[in-house]
Amino acid sequence: MAGERDILKRLRRIATHPAARDLLDDVAVLDGLVITHDSIAEGIHFFPFDPPASVGWKLVAVNLSDLAAKGATPVGALLSLTLAGENEWESHFLNGIEAACESYGLPLIGGDTIALPTGAPRVLGLTAIGRAGESVPHRGGAKAGDALWLVGTLGDSAAGLAQLRDDRNATGHLVDIYRRPVPQLGAGHSLAPHAHAMMDVSDGLLLDTLRLGEASRCTAVIDLDRVPLSSEFIAVRGGSPEARLFAATGGDDYALLGAFAPEFDPSTLNLPKGTTITAVGSLEMGDPGIRLVSDGRPIELPETLGHEHRQPAPAPVADRP
Amino acid sequence: MAGERDILKRLRRIATHPAARDLLDDVAVLDGLVITHDSIAEGIHFFPFDPPASVGWKLVAVNLSDLAAKGATPVGALLSLTLAGENEWESHFLNGIEAACESYGLPLIGGDTIALPTGAPRVLGLTAIGRAGESVPHRGGAKAGDALWLVGTLGDSAAGLAQLRDDRNATGHLVDIYRRPVPQLGAGHSLAPHAHAMMDVSDGLLLDTLRLGEASRCTAVIDLDRVPLSSEFIAVRGGSPEARLFAATGGDDYALLGAFAPEFDPSTLNLPKGTTITAVGSLEMGDPGIRLVSDGRPIELPETLGHEHRQPAPAPVADRP
Repeated sequence: MAGERDILKRLRRIATHPAARDLLDDVAVLDGLVITHDSIAEGIHFFPFDPPASVGWKLVAVNLSDLAAKGATPVGALLSLTLAGENEWESHFLNGIEAACESYGLPLIGGDTIALPTGAPRVLGLTAIGRAGESVPHRGGAKAGDALWLVGTLGDSAAGLAQLRDDRNATGHLVDIYRRPVPQLGAGHSLAPHAHAMMDVSDGLLLDTLRLGEASRCTAVIDLDRVPLSSEFIAVRGGSPEARLFAATGGDDYALLGAFAPEFDPSTLNLPKGTTITAVGSLEMGDPGIRLVSDGRPIELPETLGHEHRQPAPAPVADRP
Repeated sequence: MAGERDILKRLRRIATHPAARDLLDDVAVLDGLVITHDSIAEGIHFFPFDPPASVGWKLVAVNLSDLAAKGATPVGALLSLTLAGENEWESHFLNGIEAACESYGLPLIGGDTIALPTGAPRVLGLTAIGRAGESVPHRGGAKAGDALWLVGTLGDSAAGLAQLRDDRNATGHLVDIYRRPVPQLGAGHSLAPHAHAMMDVSDGLLLDTLRLGEASRCTAVIDLDRVPLSSEFIAVRGGSPEARLFAATGGDDYALLGAFAPEFDPSTLNLPKGTTITAVGSLEMGDPGIRLVSDGRPIELPETLGHEHRQPAPAPVADRP
């Protein structure tokens, strides 16, 4: 039996073309275009009872977040749609696709529609294409001494998901963020030319920082006290170290993590109004990986750093509503 | 309830960007690149007992056939892989992906890997990107008076599928063609600069010709007697009108259908050795659609012209082996 890691290793061995960037970047870069594909599955990435328009929105946002992390400007998308019975759900899903595409100037330019066996969980995919800016930061370009900055706040979506697990009728800001995340395209565009490395935080800050550290062959250090939390998150979960660990491992954040020269302050750039940008750590010489500090002292890493295999919002399989 | 046609109409209304080509072409054309995405689902497009390497091969071939029909040269692919339990199957599937990518010079440059709920049918997708040649023929560019030519033979794959439905251990040339189809990249590349319209025949010759006729606002005429059959097909199913109708509606053919000026003979072009190319009909002024003739006389269209919704090989859901 091949483990999941073996499958990913195998894919890396196949993908040797420079455009693949060793499959470390969530995107391919070809002919000045930045290309990404993310799929989501019912019962894994969304609840069967999530409003279908929000699932459509989210599929677009997941992909645009990958473009944002590379500073790319959206130019087109191909939708992979599955039909598994009545199409009421799909009709609303397309409302969400259309709304997100319009909001972010992403024209739908192709795709396909296939049937699924009756009752099979829906699997929906999107290929998003962006035009590269003057530079397309790698995940592996950070240097020892760099500062780590984070765009956005963490944990809102994971807290919203937790509310929905307790009560599928939960509402409020955190549920809204879980369902209608906002990709940081404007910030990504401004930051990319200055970033030594950049990626979106989709699987949990600690896991994604580990990946950035490994790809850049440095030790990444995250200061737990500086993990940015929204006032809405704090109102529900507080700002304790436990709450911050929850936020730093919850995933599904649509935040951007960038490494910049220590003397450079990216918060002085022309960022979209209301953008939260926070220095959360640094990179050091040392074993490729991650260290966590709080109150100036090293603290132990939690057992789980985030979600593997692009499962930003693992959800129990529930009955269809 | 929205019908499946409503969903497709809706997608066309959303996809207004010129790169989308009104979603009539199975590909998007952007910045000199030709981009396509096709997904396949277990129990719909392949049997659970099909060898997984052949499923991988086929997923690549399905997408390359779309590039072939536009005369594009493969430059890269993004794979959307699902993991649904043990990964033995996926490991063999990747062997097929790798073999097909190597055979056709298609580097794997990205994609994603997601989990599925346990026991869910696999859904596998590929985005294939090709470099456009000097022209990228539309489906809708044919003119009244054009001749219709077909590259390849028809019905082999559908006949192989029928053999597998009778006996899942069936073997032989037709089963091989069903499992390891060959996209007509070389022929497509040579034909594209001369074609007024071109598309791949994936859903059945009659259905795809109807689509070409509709897109080109002409009546397409197919001469059933000229539907090209392989000797292996004839050995199993004979060459009767019924067998030809089966071949012309079976789908999953990986053939190319092109419309050319009547005085132009595409069989004189430099085509790959062994290429079968046959004049199978023509285009006339008249209602957009299709007519069928045999022995010089009009004959009735069969009730089913092919497979809708990209179901090249609809298969009953069977138990996993």
